[in-house]
Amino acid sequence: MKLYYHPLSFPALSTLFTAEAAGADYETQVINLQEGEQKSEAFLAINPYGRVPALSDGDFCMAESEAIMRYIARKAGSDLYPSDIEAQAKVDQWMDYVVQHVRTPVARVQFNRVIVKFMGGEADESSLKTGLQFLENNLPIVEQTLTDQPFLCGSQMSLADIALVSALEPVDMCGIDLSPYPNLKAWRAERQSETFYTNVHSHFGAELGM
Amino acid sequence: MKLYYHPLSFPALSTLFTAEAAGADYETQVINLQEGEQKSEAFLAINPYGRVPALSDGDFCMAESEAIMRYIARKAGSDLYPSDIEAQAKVDQWMDYVVQHVRTPVARVQFNRVIVKFMGGEADESSLKTGLQFLENNLPIVEQTLTDQPFLCGSQMSLADIALVSALEPVDMCGIDLSPYPNLKAWRAERQSETFYTNVHSHFGAELGM
Repeated sequence: MKLYYHPLSFPALSTLFTAEAAGADYETQVINLQEGEQKSEAFLAINPYGRVPALSDGDFCMAESEAIMRYIARKAGSDLYPSDIEAQAKVDQWMDYVVQHVRTPVARVQFNRVIVKFMGGEADESSLKTGLQFLENNLPIVEQTLTDQPFLCGSQMSLADIALVSALEPVDMCGIDLSPYPNLKAWRAERQSETFYTNVHSHFGAELGM
Repeated sequence: MKLYYHPLSFPALSTLFTAEAAGADYETQVINLQEGEQKSEAFLAINPYGRVPALSDGDFCMAESEAIMRYIARKAGSDLYPSDIEAQAKVDQWMDYVVQHVRTPVARVQFNRVIVKFMGGEADESSLKTGLQFLENNLPIVEQTLTDQPFLCGSQMSLADIALVSALEPVDMCGIDLSPYPNLKAWRAERQSETFYTNVHSHFGAELGM
């Protein structure tokens, strides 16, 4: 199984975290977005959308980060995506919640506070404000859940937790303050100390020459 | 199994379409969003987020539209969500694609061209432009896929097609022109003639007094 990614793509990160946490047998290939490698013939054969992340497993190729996360966990037979119908539905529910209601507004803030500077553009203040407002509306539910139980879906880590730790990756670089959410902060620090997280980041460090 | 929805919530629509198409045994309950019923104690016991759609099945309750779609299809043993690992991964991939790259920009356009008027606000022209640009970038891939094969994942309808028909529900009311995408238009007209679609809409018509 091969995962195609770029170290600065946060959705791609979630697929690497999943492969590590599921104990999958995988290799990786960086796609050089700066040089447009995502539009190369070789990569378009893997993912015709020309985006990272993507996965190939023999002749089978696919794209989209949450879909790849589910595939990796199923293929590895991992408890990160339980097979019980109700337990699986709760993981699905929280993956959707995180992607729609946390990752999307974090991406808005990141775009307007960080990415526009590299693009030489101007921040869209209205979009930035909307992103911050969404987080203020949506993070209290995450905080409450992590007050009641150690992981988003109960007593065991799941793909939903990996989606959340990935969605929060840009918060420090773009000045999103998590201090109103102490249980979320503590949960995040614990995840960041685990090997699935540190292994992926040390790998990135080497690639980025750090 | 009971589905909680509002006739004007497009994500909620996708759960009703799924229940019809999967032949599930289900009942429905409208949650009166105008009167704030989503924040009532009774509904918060079903979905603590206070949003539609939601599902209850005996004591089991859940939220988030794609998660509910998967639950309904699995519970009904429907081919809409195949159990083969690679086939399921392709459905997951296209559900993610539709939600992230079609439904989200359609919602931006709908918000700025329609919903703001009801809220007495002003359209955010920059957000509207971004939404239209995303659709121009993302719909050609859908068009190409529906040129090569009759459904998003091949020769059989799946949850991904239901997600797409739901995501496109607002396009007429908010003036999104699908004529550059003739195969998508023809695919949509076919889906709209099927009983899963017409049954749900006739139900809504009755509820809305039409």
